[in-house]
Amino acid sequence: MTQMWIEILQQPEALKNCINTNKEKIKTLVEFLKNKDIRHIIISGRGTSWHSGIYFKYLMEVKAGIPVSFAAPSVATLYNGKVNMEGALVIGISQSGRAADVLEVLKSAKAQGVPTIAITNYEDSPMATEADHHLFCAAGEEKSVAATKTFTSTLYLLANLAAEWTGDEDFKKELAAVPELVQKVIDNNEQIKNTVLRYRFMSECYVLGRGMNYSITLETALKLMETTYVRARGFAISDFYHGPFAVVDKHLPVFVFAPEGESKKDAVEMINKLKDAGADVLAVTNSSEIKALADSSIDIPEGVSDFISPFVNAVTGQMFACNLSVLRGLNPDNPRGLKKVTVTR
Amino acid sequence: MTQMWIEILQQPEALKNCINTNKEKIKTLVEFLKNKDIRHIIISGRGTSWHSGIYFKYLMEVKAGIPVSFAAPSVATLYNGKVNMEGALVIGISQSGRAADVLEVLKSAKAQGVPTIAITNYEDSPMATEADHHLFCAAGEEKSVAATKTFTSTLYLLANLAAEWTGDEDFKKELAAVPELVQKVIDNNEQIKNTVLRYRFMSECYVLGRGMNYSITLETALKLMETTYVRARGFAISDFYHGPFAVVDKHLPVFVFAPEGESKKDAVEMINKLKDAGADVLAVTNSSEIKALADSSIDIPEGVSDFISPFVNAVTGQMFACNLSVLRGLNPDNPRGLKKVTVTR
Repeated sequence: MTQMWIEILQQPEALKNCINTNKEKIKTLVEFLKNKDIRHIIISGRGTSWHSGIYFKYLMEVKAGIPVSFAAPSVATLYNGKVNMEGALVIGISQSGRAADVLEVLKSAKAQGVPTIAITNYEDSPMATEADHHLFCAAGEEKSVAATKTFTSTLYLLANLAAEWTGDEDFKKELAAVPELVQKVIDNNEQIKNTVLRYRFMSECYVLGRGMNYSITLETALKLMETTYVRARGFAISDFYHGPFAVVDKHLPVFVFAPEGESKKDAVEMINKLKDAGADVLAVTNSSEIKALADSSIDIPEGVSDFISPFVNAVTGQMFACNLSVLRGLNPDNPRGLKKVTVTR
Repeated sequence: MTQMWIEILQQPEALKNCINTNKEKIKTLVEFLKNKDIRHIIISGRGTSWHSGIYFKYLMEVKAGIPVSFAAPSVATLYNGKVNMEGALVIGISQSGRAADVLEVLKSAKAQGVPTIAITNYEDSPMATEADHHLFCAAGEEKSVAATKTFTSTLYLLANLAAEWTGDEDFKKELAAVPELVQKVIDNNEQIKNTVLRYRFMSECYVLGRGMNYSITLETALKLMETTYVRARGFAISDFYHGPFAVVDKHLPVFVFAPEGESKKDAVEMINKLKDAGADVLAVTNSSEIKALADSSIDIPEGVSDFISPFVNAVTGQMFACNLSVLRGLNPDNPRGLKKVTVTR
């Protein structure tokens, strides 16, 4: 069994552990933050960490009305610029806690007296030590280069932070069920494995979704690139209309995250347009309407809302990538050209 | 001659016209904005408009220290969220001025009493009418679906706004020379056309750059997708290390924007790593060191700084895409599956 697969299977436990470790901490943290006059939130993180931040952006803007932006690390590291962070909360995200550019952003925030949070999987990492507050993934060591359990743990911490911030009890209830939902996705591996066969020989694909799932299109494309070398690209459905759609031709594989809920209408429209152009559509969905439209599909659990679907979609994407990697005779634990800890400035 | 090519050639004139039309307006606007307590800037725009906003983000964060973020239109249109924009300046960008989702963001900002700017190429468009202030591209009607002169005009308006905001006289001087620099790029078409021959049969490529040119990697990839159907993908060099690098194998075409200046060191490192992996590297550069490393190269004018290089790089990308489109027997003016005005919610 590959390390990536072992870590995928660990996710239900890791998520439970993550929330048990942080439940009280998140409550205290939110009480503290609510007494600050926070006008906006700045997130710093790259790759997988950035993707988790995108989900948080949508959650906080929709549920709390607080605008969220992303730090461009090169502003400081390349151009010596200094961003005025007055009125902001700054969150740095990195699995290792050793991302040099993210650490710089946290340092700059602290020097300006702005509240900082680090989210990492290492309690004694430089970022964990630097930030005012540390949310610890508590996912256990992640050995595979492709992040899986640290991604969903980070996503879970951020979602619980948003739920606590807004006091949204319904969302809290949905979040409490996430470990079981992820287990259901894992139990569906037979279907995922069979579906993967169809894509044995694809060299590229597009991954589409909207709103809450925009983050998961990018993350799934990244998992595919890292472990199968498929040239995958994630796009928000709405952005895909603004130019990229021209590349669609016969036989192009396009994956669409299309859960029941707010984004479904847009997914239906896009899938119809894709079919007209001859694309081959794989839907990840719990909607029978969508299933009937697509060329192939992977189920996600019934009753999962648009807001919570990123968790089950992310794990589906990980399982798809890992299965395809093994089917192709590759080793998902050691992608060519990559290291576990990437330090960019 | 294609409409796209006609409009590419019009750019030096369009840029002069643009700045003559707006010079005084930008001065008055900046005086007005400086009296407001602006903590951060929110930009709304899709596709090409979004890309111009990314350049502005880097400029404003480096030169003025004001954090810039991007509105996620679906927050309002899909999820009925209402972002608290207190302390923000909101800028909506759309060639047609008719982007429904961007208009929504402007309306929400105005309802909250927050200053708004629209940048469009139509003085009587809904967005121009809605916003407190309108910066008019004055580029003349753009008929080709692929935006060229409205992109560089928008970029020029945003750069001049940043220069006026920061009172950076050196940058103002550099900006004044942009129309001539763009003319030099146009005069270099023979080299561009010859270089394009090498890429007659590519089906996909990556476009890399960093900092100021991250925006231009996305824009050039979009031009290629729209007019040549090449599956092109733009990335910041630093993000490309965080996973995507695994897709690089022998013969993969990778374009790198690598001007002299702040981002050159990172470009050199990336090109060396790409060459080691067997990729075929095209450099767009004014550095002899970079030219010696790459498999092929296109010149940009000497003396162009990292900050101003997005203008010449953008036009180089447009000319590359248009030449390749014609070489392939396609019509760049009418990409399949696209319309000139895309209204997404």
